[in-house]
Order: sequence, then structure tokens, then C-alpha cells
Amino acid sequence: MTRILMAQINTTFGDLRGNTNLILKALLSARANRCSLVMTPELSISGYPPNDLLHFSDFIEANEKALNEIVLASANLTLVVGCIRKNTGEGKPLFNSAAIIRNQKIIGYYDKCLLPTYDVFDERRYFEPGGGSQTFEHEGIKIALTICEDIWEEEIALYEFNPLDQLVSDHPDLLLNLSASPFEAQKIPLRLALAQKVALKLNCPVLYCNQVGGCDDLIFDGSSFACTSEGLLDQARSFQEDFFVVDTKRLPTSKNSKENSSKELYEALTVGIRDFFHKQHFKKALVGLSGGIDSALVTTLAAHALGPENVLAISMPSRFSSDSSIEDAFKLAQNLGIEIKKVPIESIHAPFLELLSPEFKGLPEDVTEENLQSRIRGVILMAFSNKLKHLVLSCGNKSEMAMGYATLYGDLAGGLGAISDLTKSQVYELSHWINREKEVIPTSILTKAPSAELKPNQKDSDTLPEYNLLDPIIEAYIEGHLSPEKIALKLKIEVDFARSIIQKIHRAEYKRRQAPLGLKVTSKAFSVGWNSPIVQKWA
Amino acid sequence: MTRILMAQINTTFGDLRGNTNLILKALLSARANRCSLVMTPELSISGYPPNDLLHFSDFIEANEKALNEIVLASANLTLVVGCIRKNTGEGKPLFNSAAIIRNQKIIGYYDKCLLPTYDVFDERRYFEPGGGSQTFEHEGIKIALTICEDIWEEEIALYEFNPLDQLVSDHPDLLLNLSASPFEAQKIPLRLALAQKVALKLNCPVLYCNQVGGCDDLIFDGSSFACTSEGLLDQARSFQEDFFVVDTKRLPTSKNSKENSSKELYEALTVGIRDFFHKQHFKKALVGLSGGIDSALVTTLAAHALGPENVLAISMPSRFSSDSSIEDAFKLAQNLGIEIKKVPIESIHAPFLELLSPEFKGLPEDVTEENLQSRIRGVILMAFSNKLKHLVLSCGNKSEMAMGYATLYGDLAGGLGAISDLTKSQVYELSHWINREKEVIPTSILTKAPSAELKPNQKDSDTLPEYNLLDPIIEAYIEGHLSPEKIALKLKIEVDFARSIIQKIHRAEYKRRQAPLGLKVTSKAFSVGWNSPIVQKWA
Repeated sequence: MTRILMAQINTTFGDLRGNTNLILKALLSARANRCSLVMTPELSISGYPPNDLLHFSDFIEANEKALNEIVLASANLTLVVGCIRKNTGEGKPLFNSAAIIRNQKIIGYYDKCLLPTYDVFDERRYFEPGGGSQTFEHEGIKIALTICEDIWEEEIALYEFNPLDQLVSDHPDLLLNLSASPFEAQKIPLRLALAQKVALKLNCPVLYCNQVGGCDDLIFDGSSFACTSEGLLDQARSFQEDFFVVDTKRLPTSKNSKENSSKELYEALTVGIRDFFHKQHFKKALVGLSGGIDSALVTTLAAHALGPENVLAISMPSRFSSDSSIEDAFKLAQNLGIEIKKVPIESIHAPFLELLSPEFKGLPEDVTEENLQSRIRGVILMAFSNKLKHLVLSCGNKSEMAMGYATLYGDLAGGLGAISDLTKSQVYELSHWINREKEVIPTSILTKAPSAELKPNQKDSDTLPEYNLLDPIIEAYIEGHLSPEKIALKLKIEVDFARSIIQKIHRAEYKRRQAPLGLKVTSKAFSVGWNSPIVQKWA
Repeated sequence: MTRILMAQINTTFGDLRGNTNLILKALLSARANRCSLVMTPELSISGYPPNDLLHFSDFIEANEKALNEIVLASANLTLVVGCIRKNTGEGKPLFNSAAIIRNQKIIGYYDKCLLPTYDVFDERRYFEPGGGSQTFEHEGIKIALTICEDIWEEEIALYEFNPLDQLVSDHPDLLLNLSASPFEAQKIPLRLALAQKVALKLNCPVLYCNQVGGCDDLIFDGSSFACTSEGLLDQARSFQEDFFVVDTKRLPTSKNSKENSSKELYEALTVGIRDFFHKQHFKKALVGLSGGIDSALVTTLAAHALGPENVLAISMPSRFSSDSSIEDAFKLAQNLGIEIKKVPIESIHAPFLELLSPEFKGLPEDVTEENLQSRIRGVILMAFSNKLKHLVLSCGNKSEMAMGYATLYGDLAGGLGAISDLTKSQVYELSHWINREKEVIPTSILTKAPSAELKPNQKDSDTLPEYNLLDPIIEAYIEGHLSPEKIALKLKIEVDFARSIIQKIHRAEYKRRQAPLGLKVTSKAFSVGWNSPIVQKWA
């Protein structure tokens, strides 16, 4: 009987002291729980994802020192710890590695073989791939190691060899996989299905230990688990830290882990917001609350993530704001128990128009006047942010980000885009889920037609196609990489219409380049993983 | 005798029609100049750098069609054309390739072996490395091919093998290298020194054909050349298109290509600005002209790049602006022959303070009030930009970007950061060079102490160390990746001081993430090649 502790920890990039402490805490917990083996997620000392701090040799040396501290603390235990390792040979100067530590000695390393370099991943920028498999004996069982991508056979066509093929001939009794696998919709059952296939191939159980918590735009859900080819054996909690104990001889029976997808999304966004704030020591959020659905959802998420006492909403009505929008904003604030201030913009809006009117004489009104209002609001929010040290949440959704239906330095102002990877359709779906038991978001917000309220009687649908038409095109293009012809075929729409939407997506690139970091919850967000030029003539 | 035309062309990413036309024009020129062989830069049909358009299969197919058109036009010529090639085997789905075309047939391909995945380069995201060397015969001489990185032996430790080692045993008579090598200071002599070493190793001349023109943040200088191990034989023009003919039998004698580095920088920035505008069909630029040196330099560069008739300067004095600054701005506009408008911000500034004062009652004045002025100017500039369809140039320099000494949505507003990769020291150096013959930038701008003029008697040195202290630290950290200890040793300063500067650099990451694209002119710019997290606890 071997008892293994999976340390599903919430690391902070570069916080070597804090991350090391989390691992040391896991060792204490292992001792208290009679575990003889502890495993951590991928790159658990530095935190994942790796990035350009890896170019600094003092950072690498500090990582090695932290590893030594963990080694010293390992008396009578066996550890598998995700860490950076120097490459003294040819190639990139580092390995993405796992140190195998036993009773205060490092007895081996396993270097990650498959280094993802796509979407948000950029591991070849820093790391050299490992040469092959590594196993070790523990209490009479033969344990094999892999790191994250190494077992993702779906992606294997991208690489020259399959580390699992080597492992088959090693005949391990157990596979430990150290991961830092970010959340996206449907990812949790996907990981399980994948691990089950691996368990079948290697004919042994798989322990999958994942990082948890928010890291800039990425949200790690944890959801570490043990499985066999037959199915899930046990699963750690999602979206929170967990020291999760697996007993290889008394593995519990299979259970259903299927989560409601709205609930999962809600938890993911909550963790993403909370960690973005708390890891930077920000306590309080500021939201410009218009009475529309996007800012209503963001405010609701913020109140849940940070506590209602830590959210300040500002209603900034203009001459074009409807009374019902203002009322809705105040109603929501009341429902959430958050503070709301009203700062009307007319006293700035009017002199701005007066200042500019001689300059723009003879020129027709256009989007300039609409953007002006949005930017005045941006200036007010940022003034509150500067003065009160609250961080501004921006409220743009993915449909708006795709179409450029947003104002740079206006509603795009902020430190974090909380829902920038949710299409408008998903914004509605999640809001309805939030209201499933009682009215949190006032019903009128959910039922009225979307409007920016920047000119009289404006509706989103004056400028954009209906969202139920638009959102599937955005998804097919951004996540599916389909051509306009294939999108037209798939969605039964005109090719020219699909093409016009794609053109708008590319024309808006310059806005997205200056948008705040946004939380990623789909397979392709407008974020680190989206790399498109501003100047181009393809679309 | 073989006459070879090097098509140093200015491609636009994704403009397959335009890029193909440039190559077809090169074929015409080759015929007119009795050349039998034409070579293009790397990835000349799609334009370099590659990016996520490569994920779309319709884009790849359109590239293949364009290549076919070039093949059909190649009667009686031999061409070496940089192109995308599908990989039908394992690994990433594409090669970064060179098609060898003879008399309307593709007779072979060479696939790039070394795929840079560092700094601004991300080729492993898309491409599989090629397997090895490729030579072909042309008019009795044996020609070898390489693509850009393949010959950069300085970087060879990053890779598993050296394609030049294979080529040595091929004994070529001539090496053609297809490149897309971006400009940075000192890069032109560096390339020559490198190519000379290669010529020595292979014992044959090297023809280096480079892309020219601006591509988002990257500036390609062209400067294609022919050399032997002894030195430069001939060089194409820098920073402009050139159909450059090399005669292998009558190679001219060596000449000195050393450029004045300020002149080179001036030309690079000019091309970067011009191509960013013209490739997007923008004609006119807008600059907020304060009377300080940064906006003075940007305005001067814009007038040179776009023509003085295409630059509109806006002076936006506040209650804290000095008369001399306003005079300097008008004097500069006169010297450059550009239009200037004066739009004082007091009529907005005062009501904003009035609107906010009840909200901020009891709280001391701080950076909030300074940022407010900067943001009001941002709103005015963007209103002009929206109304007149002029593109705003932002004026932040690298020292300010490093220290976060800039206001988000204020002076950081704009479509392009023209000097964001120049330290303040370089800004002065380049401005003095511009004034080398006559006063273009008023002397008083060059001599007064730098100030943001956002409160009474403010100086940059109230907040920042003197730039002659600061800039070497920034360079040692950003470009040199040195630790605080090594920086202290190198610059003979206190470690704690170096560390405090490095901390400020990392704390400002959130501002840079929302800054406009900036032109890259050093080995490490705050741009695509700088990948640092916002939330971290290392520095």
C-alpha cells in the first residue's frame, strides 16, 4: 500500500519563497497523512507559465537554491517536484524537469519531452526537449513520470516521437503526470478521457496533478485526479488548493465528475479575478456600471470574487442614458450589497463638445462624439482608480472585442478584462445561470435590447448583426480557423457576409493590442495565444 | 559568368497579390538586366514575420496558388523564392522553405533547418525544421541554399545540428541566403562579419538577400549584399527597395559600408513610420506637441517620413504649461513647415476637478491630478483622430516605458510608438544629429531640463534618477539580462539602487501591456520580443 499526496497548489510566478513554502507545507501534510510520496504540479517552484524571467541567470540560480531547500526537508519521504533544470549540453539552456528526491538526495530527473509551442504555450523559447523516459522504484512499485504535454497524444502529430511508446516497454505500475493545464470549457472531461487512454496503453493507473489558480490571463482549475482505463477513481477539488491523498491499494470507486458548465465558468472567472487582484495585493475593484448586461455580469463576478464590500460601482450617466438603465444599475448594486456612486458626465461632456466644435465645423457627427462619452467615463474611472488604489475591471465581451465594438481608452480602459473571452451569447447564458434561483441581476437587464446608449435610441443591432448570428461566426473563425467559404457552408449563411465579419475582426486588431489582459476560458482567446499582425492585407 | 538579381522587396503581410506582383516585377527586371537567376527574401510571398494567419488553411492554399503564378512566369529563368510549404509528414504542418524554380517547373525545395524561437521570433509555433542541405547546378556552378538563421553560427548552441557542417562537404561554388533579418543598431556590420565567416568556412562567396520595409513593430533595413571571406563585394541600398544585380565573375572590389549610426537610426524610424501608415492607407499623422524633446523628435520624424503637409501638431497647454514650451512647439512647427493648432485644456480641466473634488474630499493631491491632464489630452487627440482619420503617434521613449513614467490612456494613447525603443539619452543624441547642420529642433528644447509640466515647477528628475544614470541600468537589465549585483559591479552603483530600478521596470508591466505597438531598433524592445508577466513576485 502506497499513499501518495498530490500537492495541488496555487503558485505565483517568481514567488520562489511563497511557492517553496507551499511545497514544504505539502510535506508536513504528507507526514500527517502517512503518505510516503509527494508530487507537485509542473514547474512548481517558479510557477507556470515560464516566461522571460527565465532569461536571467540569477533567477535560475535562485530556483536551484529553492530546490535544495526542499531536498533538505525531504527526510524519509520521496518527492517528485516540477522544477527548472540547467542544460549543460547543446540546445536551449534549460529543461522543464521533474526532480526525483528521496530522503534528502536528488536521485534523478525526468525532462519534459514534448514542449508545446502553440496557442498560449511558448516552451521552445526557453527549453530543450528531454531525451526519453524515466522510471523509479518506490515501495516495490515501478513509477513512471511524464510532464503535462507528454501524455497529450491528441497533439502527438506535432512532435517527432511519442514518449508513451517508450514507456510501454518500461511496464510501469503507476504513471505520475505533473501538469500545468489551463482551464477552458470542456477541458476537465477531456483530460480524464485522455488519461484513461494512457492508462489503457500503459496498463496502469494514472495520477494527474495540476496547478490551480489564476496567472495573468490563464486560469488553472486544478481538478487533479487518479484514474484507470475504466474511469475516474478520485478527484481533487476544482478551483481551490487541495492536498489530495491517493491510496494505490484502496482506490475509491468511480464517480461522476460532470460539472454544470455555467457553474464551472463562474468558478473559473471568480478564481481568475481573485488571483489577479490578491497576488498583486489589490483588494478593491472599480466597475463602470451602465445598467447593461456586460457590466452587470462583471460587477456580479467581482462581488463574488472579492466580497461585496470590495467592489465600488460608478454609474456615469450621459444625456443619452435612459432612466431605466440607471435604475437597473442601482437595483443591481442593492441586490449585490455593493457601494454605488453616481457621477454624471454632462458637466464634462458639454464643454468638450464646445471646445471641439470650432475645430470640427462643417464635419458631420460620427463615431467621434460617441467615443468622446466613453472616454470621459474612462478618465473618471481612472481618476478614482488612481486616487483610491482600486483596480478597474473592464467589461468588454468577446463579440465586441472581435468586432472592435468598443472604445480604446474608453470602455476598454481597465486592468483586467473579466469577460473578454465570453461571447455575448455566453454572457447571457451565464447571467441567466446566476439568476437560476433568485433575481441577482435585474430581469430588465436580461430582457432589454443591448445598447451602448451613446446616441438617441441606439441599439447594438444598428451596427452589428444579431449576436445569435454573429457569435457562431466568431467561434468558427477564431477557435475553428475556418475559411469564409467553410463558415458559410457550416452556418448556412452567405460567404460575403462571413467574409465581412472576418474583415472586421482583423481591422479591430489595433484595439485588441491595447486592450487589458483578459481571462482565457475558451480554446482560443484574444490574448497571448492570438498572434495576429496589425498591418496586413489578407482579410 | 552568372548574373543574379537579388529582389530586395518590401512585402506586406498577407498581401499575396501585391507581394507576388513585386516578385513578377523582379523577373522583368532580371530579363532587362540579362540575369539568369533571381532570388527573393525569406517567405517573400506571404511576407515575414509569419504569424497566426498560418493557422488558416485557406491562407496556405492561396500562398500555393501565388507560387504557381510565379512558376508560370519563370520561362528561361531560374528562381529561388522564399515560400511556405506544407509538411505532409510528422511534426508542425508547415516548412519555412525556398522553392527552386527553373523554366516553369519547381525542381526542388530547401526547408529552413534552424527555426529561431526567441526574442521576436516564434517559428517553432508554425514550422517543422528541414532535414538538411540542398544544392543545385546553375550555368555550371554549384549553388547551395540557406535561409536566414541557418547561417547564424553565433546562435548555433541553441540547436542540435549545424547545417553549415553538412554544406562544407557539398563544396558549393556559391551560397544564397534568403533572409528576413530585422534592423537593430550595429546589425549591418554584424551580418557582414557573420557572412564572411561562412564564406571562409564554405570557401565560396555568399549572397545575402534581405527583406526591406516596416512590418508592425519590426523594421527591415534590406542592406542585401555579396561578400567573400575577404570582405564586402557590393551592397544594395538600405531602407528602400532595390533590384540588386550581382555578377559572379565581375564582382566589384571591397568597399566600406560603415554608416553613421544616428543616420541609420533616423532612416530606420522613418521607414518604420512610413510603412506603418502607408501599408494601412493612412496618410496623415497627429502629434500632441508639448514643446518637450520627445514630441519634438517624433514630429520631426513624422514630417520626414510622411511629408510636412501630412503632419498635424496639436499644442494642448494647461495651467502648468510654460510659455516657453508653447513657443518652442510653434517654432518647431514653423521650422518643419507643418500645421499646428492650439487647443488649451483649461475649459475641460477645471470642470473635471470640480466634478471630482466632492468625491476626493479630504484626500491629498497626488498623481491622480497629473494623470487627469494627460488623459484629457489623450481624449482630445483621439477625437481629432476619429474625426479627421489621422493616426496618432505616441511619444513615449524607452526610459519612460521602462519606469512607467507615462500615463495610460494619456500620453500613451496612439497607434504607434515612434521612439519607444530609444532611451532618453538616445533621444537627445538623435535630436542633436538632426540639428547637425541647421536648427530644426529649437535649441531651447535640447537644453532645458526635461519636464512633464503636470504640476508647478515639475522636473523629470523629481521622480526619476538622471537619465545618464538610469539609461545604462535599463540597457544592462533589458538587453543584457544582468542581475542587480552584476549591474552594480559593472556600472559602479549601489546594488539596492539597481534593484529599485528593476522593481520599477516590472511594476510598470501593466502599462506597457496596453501601450501602442512601438518600433524596434535595439536587440530587445518592450514589444513582441519582451514576454514578462504582470502578476509576479520575483522583482
